[in-house]
Amino acid sequence: MNLFWRYGIKSVTMDDIAKDLGISKRTIYQHFKDKNEIVEKVIKSKLNDEECQMQELEENSLNPIDEIVNISTHIRESLGSMNPSVLFDLKKYHPEGWALFREFKKSMVIQSVRDNLIKGQQAGLFRLDIDVEVLSRLRIEQIEMAFDPSIFAFGQFDIVEVQIQFLDHFVRGILSPEGFNYYNQLPSTATQSNTHEK
Amino acid sequence: MNLFWRYGIKSVTMDDIAKDLGISKRTIYQHFKDKNEIVEKVIKSKLNDEECQMQELEENSLNPIDEIVNISTHIRESLGSMNPSVLFDLKKYHPEGWALFREFKKSMVIQSVRDNLIKGQQAGLFRLDIDVEVLSRLRIEQIEMAFDPSIFAFGQFDIVEVQIQFLDHFVRGILSPEGFNYYNQLPSTATQSNTHEK
Repeated sequence: MNLFWRYGIKSVTMDDIAKDLGISKRTIYQHFKDKNEIVEKVIKSKLNDEECQMQELEENSLNPIDEIVNISTHIRESLGSMNPSVLFDLKKYHPEGWALFREFKKSMVIQSVRDNLIKGQQAGLFRLDIDVEVLSRLRIEQIEMAFDPSIFAFGQFDIVEVQIQFLDHFVRGILSPEGFNYYNQLPSTATQSNTHEK
Repeated sequence: MNLFWRYGIKSVTMDDIAKDLGISKRTIYQHFKDKNEIVEKVIKSKLNDEECQMQELEENSLNPIDEIVNISTHIRESLGSMNPSVLFDLKKYHPEGWALFREFKKSMVIQSVRDNLIKGQQAGLFRLDIDVEVLSRLRIEQIEMAFDPSIFAFGQFDIVEVQIQFLDHFVRGILSPEGFNYYNQLPSTATQSNTHEK
């Protein structure tokens, strides 16, 4: 996982993996059929970690807005060290791994967003007239959109900052007057500077 | 155009077009090579109309928030009568027409969104810390997202209402405190009810 996250998936070969682990390729092939299987296992393990971390974040948050702020910090930390090619390579060369990611998004992540929206409505922080089904779908599509180089060209945009802008914009879009006052007195999660080259 | 908008592109044949116009297919083929060429001309003409209407909306709006509210009304009127299959069919069967639509989105629409965001910042209605490049891209992707049946299944969601929710959420996400007060005293553009079947 460290190798893939640092260099992207495509540019890491079985030789690189063997070398990094200080073992022979033959030993690797005793455990994994091919690189594709390694990628799949890595993604599965990564998504498992993510699920645990999301649950922890939820449990340790004061309220639904605080939860989003904590997710923002988490995104900054966890994506900051990830090569932007990872998702791109996954989609292009490892459809099974990509399917795992999409499945995770369509079940776990959307459920967590839905829960957050409903809790925020109950707490009076989010508007009652938002459509939870529409906006939870918007939110999960945004996560993927920030990784799409046809929309946010590599080098021109910093994916982490795009994600942070999206999340900041998303939460602002759902705030009730009470939530608006609360959110505005928090330290800003969005960067103050622009996130891309001119 | 009326036929395509009412029934989608795929289900309208050259025979249907000839019959509707009360002319022979032979006469049509004297002017157009094939259905693909008709689709391309229709899309070109439609996008031209859209461009004019967007300019008019901009000129006749009191301020950048008012402009967005007027766009919302325009979307409701112009998409309300459009079969949701149109963009889907266009993308799948008429790549040249789809390319025109994408080109329009990537040049005209994004420029209009950018202008609106900057004017809103200058008027004190939109926050100064929004990233205009990131959020204008988000906005134009949302327009397409609402038409994606893998995200918003036909029958389960009303595309017009999804677009209105998106636009309402988008503008709320960029409001300054002054803009927040102004927007909240306007009559609601978003529907009060949910936009989809349970």
